[in-house]
Amino acid sequence: MKKIVFNFKSKETKKFINQKNILGGKGANLAEMGKLGFPVPPGFTISTAACELFYKNKKKINSRLFNEIKKELKIIEKDTEKKFGCIKNPLLVSVRSGARVSMPGMMDTILNLGLNDQTVIALANKTKNIRFAKDSYRRFIQMYSDVVLGVESYNFEDLIENFKLTKGVLLDTDLDENDLEGLINDFKDLVKNKTKKDFPQNVFEQLNGAIGAVFLSWNSNRAKVYRKLNQIPSNWGTAVNIQSMVFGNMGDDCATGVVFTRDPSNGKNEIYGEYLINAQGEDVVAGTRTPQHITKKANKVSNSNGKSMQESFPKVFNELKKNLRILEKHYKDMQDVEFTVENKKLWMLQTRSGKRTAKSAVKIAVDMYKEKLISKKEAVLRVDPNSLDKLLHPTLDENTKFKVIATGLPASPGAASGKVVFTSEEAVRLNEMMQNTILVRIETSPEDIHGMHSAKGILTARGGMTSHAAVVARGMGRPCVSGSSEIEIDYKNKIFKSKNFEVKEGDVITIDGSTGRVILGEVKTVKPEISGDFSKIMKWSEEFKKLKIRANAETPSDSKTAREFGAEGIGLCRTEHMFFDEERILSVRQMILSKSKDDRHRALSKLLPHQKSDFTEIFKTMNGLPVTVRLLDPPLHEFLPKNKKEIDDVSKSLNLSVNEVEGRINELHEHNPMLGHRGCRLGISFPEIYEMQCRAIFEALVECKNKKYKSIIPEIMIPLVSTESEIKIMKELVIRVAKQVQIENKIKIKFLVGTMIELPRAAIKAKDIAKHAEFFSFGTNDLTQTTFGISRDDSGKFLNDYIENKIFDIDPFVSIDDGVGDLIEIAVSKGKKQNKKIKLGICGEHGGDPKSIDFCSKTGLNYVSCSPYRVPIARLAAAQAELKKN
Amino acid sequence: MKKIVFNFKSKETKKFINQKNILGGKGANLAEMGKLGFPVPPGFTISTAACELFYKNKKKINSRLFNEIKKELKIIEKDTEKKFGCIKNPLLVSVRSGARVSMPGMMDTILNLGLNDQTVIALANKTKNIRFAKDSYRRFIQMYSDVVLGVESYNFEDLIENFKLTKGVLLDTDLDENDLEGLINDFKDLVKNKTKKDFPQNVFEQLNGAIGAVFLSWNSNRAKVYRKLNQIPSNWGTAVNIQSMVFGNMGDDCATGVVFTRDPSNGKNEIYGEYLINAQGEDVVAGTRTPQHITKKANKVSNSNGKSMQESFPKVFNELKKNLRILEKHYKDMQDVEFTVENKKLWMLQTRSGKRTAKSAVKIAVDMYKEKLISKKEAVLRVDPNSLDKLLHPTLDENTKFKVIATGLPASPGAASGKVVFTSEEAVRLNEMMQNTILVRIETSPEDIHGMHSAKGILTARGGMTSHAAVVARGMGRPCVSGSSEIEIDYKNKIFKSKNFEVKEGDVITIDGSTGRVILGEVKTVKPEISGDFSKIMKWSEEFKKLKIRANAETPSDSKTAREFGAEGIGLCRTEHMFFDEERILSVRQMILSKSKDDRHRALSKLLPHQKSDFTEIFKTMNGLPVTVRLLDPPLHEFLPKNKKEIDDVSKSLNLSVNEVEGRINELHEHNPMLGHRGCRLGISFPEIYEMQCRAIFEALVECKNKKYKSIIPEIMIPLVSTESEIKIMKELVIRVAKQVQIENKIKIKFLVGTMIELPRAAIKAKDIAKHAEFFSFGTNDLTQTTFGISRDDSGKFLNDYIENKIFDIDPFVSIDDGVGDLIEIAVSKGKKQNKKIKLGICGEHGGDPKSIDFCSKTGLNYVSCSPYRVPIARLAAAQAELKKN
Repeated sequence: MKKIVFNFKSKETKKFINQKNILGGKGANLAEMGKLGFPVPPGFTISTAACELFYKNKKKINSRLFNEIKKELKIIEKDTEKKFGCIKNPLLVSVRSGARVSMPGMMDTILNLGLNDQTVIALANKTKNIRFAKDSYRRFIQMYSDVVLGVESYNFEDLIENFKLTKGVLLDTDLDENDLEGLINDFKDLVKNKTKKDFPQNVFEQLNGAIGAVFLSWNSNRAKVYRKLNQIPSNWGTAVNIQSMVFGNMGDDCATGVVFTRDPSNGKNEIYGEYLINAQGEDVVAGTRTPQHITKKANKVSNSNGKSMQESFPKVFNELKKNLRILEKHYKDMQDVEFTVENKKLWMLQTRSGKRTAKSAVKIAVDMYKEKLISKKEAVLRVDPNSLDKLLHPTLDENTKFKVIATGLPASPGAASGKVVFTSEEAVRLNEMMQNTILVRIETSPEDIHGMHSAKGILTARGGMTSHAAVVARGMGRPCVSGSSEIEIDYKNKIFKSKNFEVKEGDVITIDGSTGRVILGEVKTVKPEISGDFSKIMKWSEEFKKLKIRANAETPSDSKTAREFGAEGIGLCRTEHMFFDEERILSVRQMILSKSKDDRHRALSKLLPHQKSDFTEIFKTMNGLPVTVRLLDPPLHEFLPKNKKEIDDVSKSLNLSVNEVEGRINELHEHNPMLGHRGCRLGISFPEIYEMQCRAIFEALVECKNKKYKSIIPEIMIPLVSTESEIKIMKELVIRVAKQVQIENKIKIKFLVGTMIELPRAAIKAKDIAKHAEFFSFGTNDLTQTTFGISRDDSGKFLNDYIENKIFDIDPFVSIDDGVGDLIEIAVSKGKKQNKKIKLGICGEHGGDPKSIDFCSKTGLNYVSCSPYRVPIARLAAAQAELKKN
Repeated sequence: MKKIVFNFKSKETKKFINQKNILGGKGANLAEMGKLGFPVPPGFTISTAACELFYKNKKKINSRLFNEIKKELKIIEKDTEKKFGCIKNPLLVSVRSGARVSMPGMMDTILNLGLNDQTVIALANKTKNIRFAKDSYRRFIQMYSDVVLGVESYNFEDLIENFKLTKGVLLDTDLDENDLEGLINDFKDLVKNKTKKDFPQNVFEQLNGAIGAVFLSWNSNRAKVYRKLNQIPSNWGTAVNIQSMVFGNMGDDCATGVVFTRDPSNGKNEIYGEYLINAQGEDVVAGTRTPQHITKKANKVSNSNGKSMQESFPKVFNELKKNLRILEKHYKDMQDVEFTVENKKLWMLQTRSGKRTAKSAVKIAVDMYKEKLISKKEAVLRVDPNSLDKLLHPTLDENTKFKVIATGLPASPGAASGKVVFTSEEAVRLNEMMQNTILVRIETSPEDIHGMHSAKGILTARGGMTSHAAVVARGMGRPCVSGSSEIEIDYKNKIFKSKNFEVKEGDVITIDGSTGRVILGEVKTVKPEISGDFSKIMKWSEEFKKLKIRANAETPSDSKTAREFGAEGIGLCRTEHMFFDEERILSVRQMILSKSKDDRHRALSKLLPHQKSDFTEIFKTMNGLPVTVRLLDPPLHEFLPKNKKEIDDVSKSLNLSVNEVEGRINELHEHNPMLGHRGCRLGISFPEIYEMQCRAIFEALVECKNKKYKSIIPEIMIPLVSTESEIKIMKELVIRVAKQVQIENKIKIKFLVGTMIELPRAAIKAKDIAKHAEFFSFGTNDLTQTTFGISRDDSGKFLNDYIENKIFDIDPFVSIDDGVGDLIEIAVSKGKKQNKKIKLGICGEHGGDPKSIDFCSKTGLNYVSCSPYRVPIARLAAAQAELKKN
């Protein structure tokens, strides 16, 4: 049998020290600190394998495992010269979770385990501190009952409050040992009452219950949500650490605290932390007493009245400081350390890589390189690409004046302005008219996904940081303010009120998802910049990365942003977005609804100059970099008139009756538009549309050449190809138009023709398709939809069930799924077999996801393309992908 | 360079005799007849490769090819001692198409080529028959102008009619040589007038034009439609045969005819054919004169007045008869032979395998085996499985009395009765209510596909045998009467009139798609039977086939039919069809719309006894054979109430407001239902539904056991699986329910759990899925949809463009596509790697398609499942697939 219980100090454990997947982060680090010779309370780790066993064994600890645990306990007893459950010198232990990566606060912890009606007396005798002993017992009952027995904590808090009221005191510390004795009895009665059983006096029963509860907390709702947000697989499980207790609450020569080796908010190379005298760990977190700073300097900066640890415990402080330096050198990373001082003796309780803001992560990485603690490669690997997102959103220009009318939770970063809409339909409608909106809802539901996509920002009156609106908005990269309880929404009258303000549908507001502010009117925003340490990390990334990073952009302004963020080309320019402009949409509708080819040609010739000038601008902006232009893709009915006025307008312009137009609109209805008449199927049915688009591209190219701009080689991309014939026929069309334009302008034009690989058949038949394609661009959104047979727009109805049932660990629309990945690999290998020089890229939303970028790098793609604001993330991720290969 | 022109008699040609893909059917057979020593007019074949060259060369014959043709012409000149274009002894030739398989009447032919104003005189002198020469020239001008110059034939017919009216005669033969001379001049004027050019006098120009026209006719609309109907690839191309002319119209010692070696309508082993004295081939076809029988016996049977060939040309008849016997022995198949008698000399012009009815095909195959002409294997290979379709439809019971109110074209075989509906929506609605309908439309369009699927039969007022309604109905296997011009449809008032009858929406009619009759009321039908020679072929098929044949059936009556036709189990029992029954639909709706789990459970428990009794009946009927039951698959909204009354009913029964119910209905709306909340996604979200279904299956099993029926091992099939977890969770559910039922009934139950492979991801990840699946059933309908990203319901909008552009040679929803096939092969190989014993089948509509069955056999599946009426087709196809392997 595999070893599953590991003493911190055993030789065998040392072999596993680097295996956080077995010991968990906390267990591995405790063993490591032991190895470094630090004072660590004796203990052991039950490995993550036990967690799996626990779930397999109907959520029970099997007796074999429990026997092993008991054996290890004996070793602690020997080290501490105490005995578990002994009524003379009892051993007390803590039981803590410890997953592979830190999930702070998400799982359960139990302290002071081993106390019962008898050992509490022994503890009192031994420490000569009756109040401390009783208080420890009181805390243990409360914690254990909450975590293991399901008697929620507030019940106990109520009892304490009552007690204090009766006694007429304010603070817990005002309760004396007799009061605590009374409370303990009240607590036990409460437990008996709620659970129909006595509070367990058998210490092994206590231990068994606590370990089980920690395993169970791996699947608590908050842990699941945290994992989902942080893309942690649910099959990892947690380890459990059992450790003898040390006490920071035995008097004023005791303390407990948390300290970072560097400042986690700004990255400065200064110890940063807080401590409390005469307290246990949870008091620091609970906030009932105000903790003090660790260093004198911090005290000074914050004008604090209290005494720093440096002043109160100078000797211990120096030992701690020394240890911190050693730890940072050892781990080569900023550490987050928990410690306790028991009767002036320092105990190191935990160390782990410290969480930090994106900004400080960048600074720490760059500083540590300068300090020669880490190499340039390590520095680049040290910054989580996803975290950069926070640095890459527009922020409000705080120099302008604006009127904050409400605040809510800062649910998804970035600032956005737009017209207020109260329904998703309206958001979709206005988006199609190229108008910016803010979707305002009491709360959002899966039915709103469409609207959230279409809106520039989301504001909700209800829901927290993990509400539907918040989670989805973060996923989409849309700014969101959630749970703004100050606003009162009246759907019927299409207004919302806040303070004295009344905001109507169509009024413009601004939201700041980084701070939670809601503002009347439009506010100027400041574009994020890449400078200082950030730009250094970016520069270093360039040195390592091989993948090219392009951006998805279809306007000159997006193209400009992309270039500023370091994009090396445009990987996806969606031409249909250019159709929705108010000036053009009538012509688009005429084109679709006309009954004769002549009418269609007339409408197309009106669109040509618009598309041409769009392309000219984009080509100019990209100044020599490649631009992939995708020809018209969505089903035509997306462009159709939706209300009576629009229908009237088109009917008149085409000299058709309203009936005829409505008839044609009905004809265009589709049962499954995603699988309907779209993509190159339009190019086959209506070649004149693609001809117009190609002409616009080539004429723009000619204009750029004539005006002596740096020349561009456009990559013309045919969407939704599934057969060799489609790409063959479409390529012939492109070449035909190119020849015409060349002859007309007596100029030579260079271009590539390629296709999206976004259907399983295209991947499977990539060899045939590559005969005619000079490049493949993987359209992973559609490819994921068809490979799974799941419509993203409809998946909201069951996605939650799927995540709860662990069918999806990670949403396949966020990170490239394994099966979809297999198809991509097939296509790459078959495509290359046919055409060694074929250019390979990806342009789905996965192009901005670091995990997917890693996959693309491994699979041998040439570039990824993502939204302009994710380009720096992709650059860093591409560098890391390359570095991880070695 | 490859050889592309082949003289019938050259040594080199002999090597290619069996290569119809090069010589075409006609060319290969002419060469063969030459080899057998029959009198074949000298000539040569231009191979199909030339056809490809022609299309590559901008639809022109390149000079190199034409020079080769001229060279071959010289050899004919030598053989015949005539000279092409010579004004003394001119050689005349025929130019005929010859594709790899016969496409009778679909492509063009030109006779008498080589005639012009001068050679016609030479011909007259040489034959001493001025009238014959002039008539030949007249015919040639007419044919050539129609085929090559685009001056349609009716223009010339008009001129002839005018001429006869002026002269006051009735028959063409009443025109004398002077009349013909006049006509020739009129014809030439007409050509000049229409084409602005003189009729070509240069015989080589004539030849060049004629060959090109034959190549072009490969892509005529009728040829394309024929290929589509017969699944002939469009890239085969046609060969062209050039042959010196022989004349059956030089006098009464001349004749021309067509003869089959056996009777093609009933298969009897008797020469069957027709001939005309003093005529050319096209006269037999044109029907202007009534041909006579070949044999005395046939004359007698049909009470004909005319003289048989046996009587008129006894010597030639005997030679012909001998030749026919040799040919049949040589080809070991019934032959269709064209011949001409020129001045009492027999010329063999063509032989090919004769087209025959399904019935005669079966008889001929069985007879030839008895005659030891062919082996049993060959007999089985000799019957086209698809042709059996005609023998497998219910026919009207002609013994009952019925009222025919109209007739139309017999567009798709079979008889059906149902309520008249005038819209596809109504057909869909009533189908969901389990009511039979006949869809009556002026003509159908792609938007009607849904309705045509839902109706039992289709009747149209317009359109021929190849109209949309006819083609689609044949594809679906729905009876159809098209182009019934007697009926007058009034959509507005929802009635149609025919003769003196007025038929309203909802009235019941019957249509007979085999004869074209439309009948008032319901008519009893006779089920087809498998007996006599047919049952012999089926028995022999059993000896060879390895694939098991199952049927898709969900009612006891379908199951019974399936068994009678030899099904070896049910491969797909769709449980949702059982939900639409009027008695049950309210409970189904309650289940879907209920707000509480309790309400849902109540609704489900009402459904349980219904499903149970369905299964009991089916299991009884199948009597020990395996039954694959698919758990609920379609999106729930398919079951929802659609009109106000239905909504009211459900609201009341659930004690919910109409608003609430409508709200819930809206929530269930999906953008792409095909890719939505359906299949096992329902099982994950609402396990109680699948639990009820499993319970119904298992309780039915228990009941069968208790009643001592032969025991069945049901195969429970989980639909729309794409991940390992889905099948794992669903399998656990099935096992859980089985255990409960086992315990409750103290009985042991055997069953299998498996999945459909109908999503690309399932195919790609088959290895993981096979860990939990005991069988795979390929759902090729959905697999084709997702692999291509094409919704079958929406494909009507572009399918025609796709067939015209040759993107699809064969509709991938009819025969398994190559790319879809690759995915199936991947799944088979991965599935077997994980689980050697995994059972493999297919249950999409492809399961009844012989080409797809061949694929399934090659790929190593265990069974195919198809509609009950296609089971015999599948059995034969499976035997042929096996035989073709060797």
